[in-house]
Amino acid sequence: MDVAERIGEANEKFKEAIRTADGDVMPSLYTSDAVILPPNADAVTGEEAITRYWNSFFQLGITDARPLTREVIVMGDYALEVGETTVYRDDGTLVDRGKIMVLWKNDGGTWKMHRDTWNSSVPLPQ
Amino acid sequence: MDVAERIGEANEKFKEAIRTADGDVMPSLYTSDAVILPPNADAVTGEEAITRYWNSFFQLGITDARPLTREVIVMGDYALEVGETTVYRDDGTLVDRGKIMVLWKNDGGTWKMHRDTWNSSVPLPQ
Repeated sequence: MDVAERIGEANEKFKEAIRTADGDVMPSLYTSDAVILPPNADAVTGEEAITRYWNSFFQLGITDARPLTREVIVMGDYALEVGETTVYRDDGTLVDRGKIMVLWKNDGGTWKMHRDTWNSSVPLPQ
Repeated sequence: MDVAERIGEANEKFKEAIRTADGDVMPSLYTSDAVILPPNADAVTGEEAITRYWNSFFQLGITDARPLTREVIVMGDYALEVGETTVYRDDGTLVDRGKIMVLWKNDGGTWKMHRDTWNSSVPLPQ
């Protein structure tokens, strides 16, 4: 299985964690020194803060995020994923569509998110 | 000179291009197949589109952006820069503060931006 396939598998776990609103599983998808750079907030690092961040995300009523990988640039034990994402509320409403950029790291045989950021592609209201 | 220093030098050129509102110099700071993932817009790629993107940025009256490198992860001919940025209007007003994540590439001896994204750290209005 190549790196892109491994990242695809990890993304399936990520999507499942979103669907089940399971903040507790989130740190296992990140390296221990991972940093999340979410829009409209400061950077997030550390297991507890990562769980807290995703739980606050679920509190918005979001139960579906669909990252779509457009490319994977493999650089040894690192790989950069660039892609798109769509985010939905539990009633099926599209909340946001955006772009993602994730640095993955081979962490003892498991590919985990090491630096994770995204932003909206929707223009701001004038 | 190490990779972080080379990226620092390239960032000085980037800041100078912002100060002089010089969209034409921007493509020279990016690889020929670079992708910019700006907030609130779709991805931007290609020399002409990159110039156009930055010119539209300058039309907002922005003449100062100060990227601040927090870390550089070197991966052979690639390096990931993670940092912060502050953006100012020509009257000195702070327009935005945010986070940056840039994949740099050693392009025949010159380090250039290959994948460039950022987002605001300012909370959205309720």
